[in-house]
Amino acid sequence: MLPDRLQRLVHLLARLPGVGEKTALRYAMHLATEDGQLATQLGADLRDLATGIGKCTCCGNMAEIHQDRVLCDVCLDTRRDATVMCIVAKVQDLLAIENSGAMRGRYFVLGRLLSPLDGIGPQQLPLEALLGRIGADGVQELIIATPPSVDGEATALLIAREVESTGVRVSRIASGVPHGGDLEYADQITLGRAIDGRRSIDVGDS
Amino acid sequence: MLPDRLQRLVHLLARLPGVGEKTALRYAMHLATEDGQLATQLGADLRDLATGIGKCTCCGNMAEIHQDRVLCDVCLDTRRDATVMCIVAKVQDLLAIENSGAMRGRYFVLGRLLSPLDGIGPQQLPLEALLGRIGADGVQELIIATPPSVDGEATALLIAREVESTGVRVSRIASGVPHGGDLEYADQITLGRAIDGRRSIDVGDS
Repeated sequence: MLPDRLQRLVHLLARLPGVGEKTALRYAMHLATEDGQLATQLGADLRDLATGIGKCTCCGNMAEIHQDRVLCDVCLDTRRDATVMCIVAKVQDLLAIENSGAMRGRYFVLGRLLSPLDGIGPQQLPLEALLGRIGADGVQELIIATPPSVDGEATALLIAREVESTGVRVSRIASGVPHGGDLEYADQITLGRAIDGRRSIDVGDS
Repeated sequence: MLPDRLQRLVHLLARLPGVGEKTALRYAMHLATEDGQLATQLGADLRDLATGIGKCTCCGNMAEIHQDRVLCDVCLDTRRDATVMCIVAKVQDLLAIENSGAMRGRYFVLGRLLSPLDGIGPQQLPLEALLGRIGADGVQELIIATPPSVDGEATALLIAREVESTGVRVSRIASGVPHGGDLEYADQITLGRAIDGRRSIDVGDS
């Protein structure tokens, strides 16, 4: 009983990650009845998305496409320390690290993690491009910021081994009880890592 | 560190109901990196939405806009019993009732419910249009299918009072334990309604 045009919109919206038919219908109704301006703006922006946004050819971050090049703001920022490179699984992780303000170097987005069950082996990872970047940029320190999951740890280990021969210093981000977290509710693996990764407290000489 | 164009898309997507910045970013990344075809199709469909889809001038259901008229499939269906009218709060409720196949008459979508806290009083409800429809269509039975909530009940009562003078038979959909529901886990109000609304069992004469 829904008009074909609206039914098609519902089907399209249901292709967004984590969106089912009910949620898609809710979005479609909102766009059709309550916020027509949003529909028009979204329509215009989405239509030009594929031609306007692409992956940075250097690091894999999202970037505006200009006629001759696709480079992201991080790679274009000359104040960045190109000798430090942070490896992340996806662009969202890069954004999260950027928001923390703790990273002054550049990035490399893998796009995926090792996942034997999904058929993603070392051949499916952009290791060659990574080694190329390390050589071209004169990278001296590599910070592997893949998530502290089974796939993330396996990927970190693989990269550390691949890079070993280049003599680059390789580190892994710390894993432990998060800031403001409660030890009582932390899982066993997190607590184990927090203890394994303990750091000595420097009291100073005062 | 997100390109302006993508940042704007995230802001637009975050205006969808129940969508926050994180979810909007997830949608935007999916559209930008994984399903470019979806972005283009969605873009085209959304751009034409405001000019192609409108509210049925008769009942308020969603309908394709044709040059001279905006009428939904239900109102255009001549096999429908125009003397029975079902009143619903929103289009999604109409669709749910249509899917049940239990309604052979036509509809009237209120678009909102009485809600004094949100400043929605009787003046904000389309009561005049409703009375007009009842007279024009020769409606003999009115089924009020507003939700069994405080606002829904208040709205049902208001409509029943407004319509009283027309002599139309007015009923309210049943409220009780849902099909397959467990009495043990039903709330007190639902159980109270189930008992208040009990129906005698007809054993027949066999």
